Amino acid sequence: MEARRGENIEKGFDGVSVSDEVDRESIEKKKMEDEEVLSIERCFENAEVPSWQNQLTFRAFFVSFILGILFTFIVMKLNLTTGIIPSLNVSAGLLGFFFVKTWTKFLEKSGMLNQPFTRQENTVIQTCVVATSGIAFSGGFGSYLFGMSEVIAKQSTEANDAQNIKNPKLAWMIGFLFVVSFLGLFSVLPLRKIMVIDYKLIYPSGTATAHLINSFHTPQGAKLAKKQVRALGKFFSFSFLWGFFQWFFTAGDDCGFANFPTLGLKAYENRFYFDFSATYVGVGMICPYIINISLLVGAILSWGIMWPLIDARKGHWYSADLSPSSLHGLQGYRVFISIAMILGDGLYNFLKVLGKTGSGFVHQVRDKNTGIVLPVADRPSPVSASLSYDDQRRTQLFLKDQIPTWLAVGGYIAIAAISIATLPHIFHQLKWYYIVVIYIIAPTLAFCNAYGCGLTDWSLASTYGKLAIFTIGAWAGASHGGVLAGLAACGVMMNIVSTASDLMQDFKTGYMTLASPRSMFVSQVIGTAMGCVISPCVFWLFYKAFNDIGLPGSQYPAPYATVYRNMSILGVEGFSSLPKHCLMLCYVFFAAAILINLVRDAVGKKWAKFIPLPMAMAIPFYLGAYFTIDMCVGSLILFVWGKINKAKADAFGPAVASGLICGDGIWSLPSSILALAGVKPPICMKFLSRGTNTKVDNFLAS
Amino acid sequence: MEARRGENIEKGFDGVSVSDEVDRESIEKKKMEDEEVLSIERCFENAEVPSWQNQLTFRAFFVSFILGILFTFIVMKLNLTTGIIPSLNVSAGLLGFFFVKTWTKFLEKSGMLNQPFTRQENTVIQTCVVATSGIAFSGGFGSYLFGMSEVIAKQSTEANDAQNIKNPKLAWMIGFLFVVSFLGLFSVLPLRKIMVIDYKLIYPSGTATAHLINSFHTPQGAKLAKKQVRALGKFFSFSFLWGFFQWFFTAGDDCGFANFPTLGLKAYENRFYFDFSATYVGVGMICPYIINISLLVGAILSWGIMWPLIDARKGHWYSADLSPSSLHGLQGYRVFISIAMILGDGLYNFLKVLGKTGSGFVHQVRDKNTGIVLPVADRPSPVSASLSYDDQRRTQLFLKDQIPTWLAVGGYIAIAAISIATLPHIFHQLKWYYIVVIYIIAPTLAFCNAYGCGLTDWSLASTYGKLAIFTIGAWAGASHGGVLAGLAACGVMMNIVSTASDLMQDFKTGYMTLASPRSMFVSQVIGTAMGCVISPCVFWLFYKAFNDIGLPGSQYPAPYATVYRNMSILGVEGFSSLPKHCLMLCYVFFAAAILINLVRDAVGKKWAKFIPLPMAMAIPFYLGAYFTIDMCVGSLILFVWGKINKAKADAFGPAVASGLICGDGIWSLPSSILALAGVKPPICMKFLSRGTNTKVDNFLAS
Repeated sequence: MEARRGENIEKGFDGVSVSDEVDRESIEKKKMEDEEVLSIERCFENAEVPSWQNQLTFRAFFVSFILGILFTFIVMKLNLTTGIIPSLNVSAGLLGFFFVKTWTKFLEKSGMLNQPFTRQENTVIQTCVVATSGIAFSGGFGSYLFGMSEVIAKQSTEANDAQNIKNPKLAWMIGFLFVVSFLGLFSVLPLRKIMVIDYKLIYPSGTATAHLINSFHTPQGAKLAKKQVRALGKFFSFSFLWGFFQWFFTAGDDCGFANFPTLGLKAYENRFYFDFSATYVGVGMICPYIINISLLVGAILSWGIMWPLIDARKGHWYSADLSPSSLHGLQGYRVFISIAMILGDGLYNFLKVLGKTGSGFVHQVRDKNTGIVLPVADRPSPVSASLSYDDQRRTQLFLKDQIPTWLAVGGYIAIAAISIATLPHIFHQLKWYYIVVIYIIAPTLAFCNAYGCGLTDWSLASTYGKLAIFTIGAWAGASHGGVLAGLAACGVMMNIVSTASDLMQDFKTGYMTLASPRSMFVSQVIGTAMGCVISPCVFWLFYKAFNDIGLPGSQYPAPYATVYRNMSILGVEGFSSLPKHCLMLCYVFFAAAILINLVRDAVGKKWAKFIPLPMAMAIPFYLGAYFTIDMCVGSLILFVWGKINKAKADAFGPAVASGLICGDGIWSLPSSILALAGVKPPICMKFLSRGTNTKVDNFLAS
Repeated sequence: MEARRGENIEKGFDGVSVSDEVDRESIEKKKMEDEEVLSIERCFENAEVPSWQNQLTFRAFFVSFILGILFTFIVMKLNLTTGIIPSLNVSAGLLGFFFVKTWTKFLEKSGMLNQPFTRQENTVIQTCVVATSGIAFSGGFGSYLFGMSEVIAKQSTEANDAQNIKNPKLAWMIGFLFVVSFLGLFSVLPLRKIMVIDYKLIYPSGTATAHLINSFHTPQGAKLAKKQVRALGKFFSFSFLWGFFQWFFTAGDDCGFANFPTLGLKAYENRFYFDFSATYVGVGMICPYIINISLLVGAILSWGIMWPLIDARKGHWYSADLSPSSLHGLQGYRVFISIAMILGDGLYNFLKVLGKTGSGFVHQVRDKNTGIVLPVADRPSPVSASLSYDDQRRTQLFLKDQIPTWLAVGGYIAIAAISIATLPHIFHQLKWYYIVVIYIIAPTLAFCNAYGCGLTDWSLASTYGKLAIFTIGAWAGASHGGVLAGLAACGVMMNIVSTASDLMQDFKTGYMTLASPRSMFVSQVIGTAMGCVISPCVFWLFYKAFNDIGLPGSQYPAPYATVYRNMSILGVEGFSSLPKHCLMLCYVFFAAAILINLVRDAVGKKWAKFIPLPMAMAIPFYLGAYFTIDMCVGSLILFVWGKINKAKADAFGPAVASGLICGDGIWSLPSSILALAGVKPPICMKFLSRGTNTKVDNFLAS
């Protein structure tokens, strides 16, 4: 589940930030009429936006429920087989459109349609389905939750006593999910304005989904919009077919284009390669250049310099005979330095936002009618004084339906209280004060994850989960059921940060499709509630139907359940079990992240845009450089395109990027179904060094 | 050496046929001014064309001599190592330009330049160098000639007696080459007008080279021409870099993009796959659609239907335990059915041309001033009444310098007489009457090869050589040194057909660069003469310097020498040794080729363009479908491009295609040098079935 592709790609981005930057630039160069051409909302000018209550239709939730079950089955089976789960949010948008459109067409023909199908309703479905199936992942049925069971515990010689075991039962699983899954939603709710409107965070997958949904609903007659839809469609098909083509060559691990050592085998070992992923090329085209540059700088710093240097100290800094994925070894440096840097940046920005919000609140009270919070001027794509038409209209609708801050804060506190009271009853190893500490820290981490996901499209929920395992597990200690406490804490943490970034990405999609934040929030809440029931039930079905679930070599080995349990077994030893100098390096990078942010703020806008963002730099620390290369390729394509024909690149860039992201995203649905049906790809495209190849040829000849 | 890539790509094509068709179409649609835009010769209107004597400068032959030696070394070493030899004619054109240009620039600066460097001179160099290095291939130093030696003979238990052995000696090798290498030139000389002007044969590589040479010499100020040169340059770079990139993944056999089972492993086994060759995509863009369709039909008929069916009769029609390359097995069907069909088409057209030439001669005598032979109206791209400016100018210059037919016929008879008198002294097993028979049949085969190469860019010299092995070897019989007679006959035949297609391709390049046919012919003769001396000398150097030459496992195993000798050992058994029904199928396809041609001629132009050409159909019979797929991709690209923007596709199509062909062609030079320097690619991109992959993974893990 680590670094799984698309785990992260789960909600909306600020296509506006890009297309509107375009608009803003255009204003200076062209006449106002020209700008109109690039505006998406002009096309929808005559389309009525339903009130937020009307966006939440029964048919939307009915379809969401059906799709939610379908996707939960898919995710659950993948959880228990390979543990690698693709992003399904584009599929959710598309299938939602398809079902409701068919239904409304049918009603329209029979003259019984009383409410037309709008893009807002489409967004509601997408949000709800993703929330439902998201629980199947963040519920940890293939990782921490199932890692508590006896089946998994008995596979290890350590910590398999009764106090470190909790077998799955339907009742407590549903209860657990209900008390932890809603906290994430409330924790970042008050920040939606800051992240979506002020910071104009990108959320590439969310933006792409919004573009897709907009394109489905584009009214007749809009000429440029039609062309954009055609461009999106073309690259959507290309990306889908490319994914399909790639599939044939992926029999076995390390096979296929995703493992193409484009820059040579040595670079490949250090995870520097172009992996032909249409998704990340598209994401790179949507993200601002500085993000891609930051990622690249981070990748070179970590995988190019630091990790090879640390690897050279193997045997000195850490034991040489550890498995490559052991947190006691090199992987430990990767995970914890990455977390430290993300925390540094996240904390800095969290505090800054708190400060600004405070002053913004003062302004707001004084100047209540404008409703726009003071812009934070030093982040990428800040809102400038001249707002484009798209921006204006979207901001207006986004701010129309307020969600009071007291509701968010009150909700968070209420649920936290219930949770603190309930959780120790489910896991008696998890003391109430552990939970209090988690809930105090969680909003910051939720902010970090939502912020990082907005910048780079990666949600690192499992990484924050690991942090919880290490801290709470070590605090509880081995003798007090620390292994189970760690796993439970991991679950609490993962649910919070994962749903937080999901929600924010949905807000972004909603912003771009003029869906109300209220309907988004309600849809997310309903979706989450559905997920809290559906996921445990589906898991229970598997658990009861297959006796050998969780056993290595069986049909459902649930590989990550063992991984998480082992992590927790290590975790109880605490931070002292980290490899040498790791903690010191963590401090250094934590400080560096804060320092870089201070410098960025100090030097002013003109120079700040040349200073990389620590948050973006930290992400490849852990994952590797491959997706960075993809994104830089996307940037390069856009850059060259802009040089050749600026107007065209501006008008069609986001559509092309969205097509690339969505096509690949949709392909994950048939590919999951193929995997579930047991259809395996026929060919392995393998990359061997010359020496190995000679050996293999001799082996095959004999 | 069989079916080696680019063996064939050795001389000029009728870019005119393409760019002029364009012009002709344009005439109907646009005004006369528009046509001017697409004309290459308009750009060169002010550039003086030197007389044919002035095209043949000393510096040109000096540079050719140097480059000839360089290329002979490269070809020779490849002959003796892998036996796979790339096409070097683009490199010849480029390096020739580079050397002479540097020299003339230097002279110009010092004010001592008395003759400017023209594209005609450039073509002369290219022709001469290719003729010289061509002998290194057709001289058979890695195949038939070395196959006669004791070293190779002793590796077999059969036919290694004295009468079937002839060891290399410098004297007889030079003599042999001199008496056989010029026949091919004279044999097709009278047909140049018919093939280049009337039939408008394509000769894709030749055309590409001409485009390259034209682009080097394009005068300043021509706007569209400049854009075309830029397009050519862009795709040239792309194709070169693509070749370079591919190289890294080709450690070992069956590795790399050239073995990409694009359509699945099953299709790959039947040689149906897209092999990512920029050359053949470019060739496909230059060839008319009907050629590509014919190739595809032939590929499907043979590799899709016939060979699998015959393969299913393994054990019945032929012994099941033969090696896959044995002519007694499936390979026999492939080679001989292919030859039968080519011969059928070739013979039909040869006779038709003879008839038309006769009637054309009558017209010419009657109407001496026009100098244009009657058009043959039913072949692809016939000359229509309205000639474009390019066509007019090129035809005018091509026909200005005549080479009398009596010279060609007289030269052929004289050299044949010398050859018949001399050859039995060199190989006493080769009786004079064998040679007479070869020389009677040879012009037809030379025509077939030059014609087929003009259509599809493939020169099948080695295939005709095999035919000679089988016929003459069987005639001589095992007891009379038939093995050696067969090999010698193979040499005679290969030299004739190979130089014939080379010459015709050069004529095409000459036609497109306004180089005189006389200077082309003289350059080819001088180049051939240089090759007849240089090649044996270079071989002798290797032969004397390395003692283990020709031994398996050594540095210079000369793999094809053994292959050719074994073929000859089989050949002495005659056609009766062919697998069951093979001869019958040959008759059927021979007749079918004639029948299809009759139908094409009978139904008239309107329908003929939908009937495939037997010559083109026959080529994939033997080689496989892969290059056909490449060419169809090229066609498809041009087709789609034409649909999107007809004017642009017309203007830039040939330039893009030439860029693709030339870039890949030039890459063969550094890649050969890398191979000679012993630098091997680091990675093998391998394609394994799922089952095999599992085995290999287990093997690598253990």
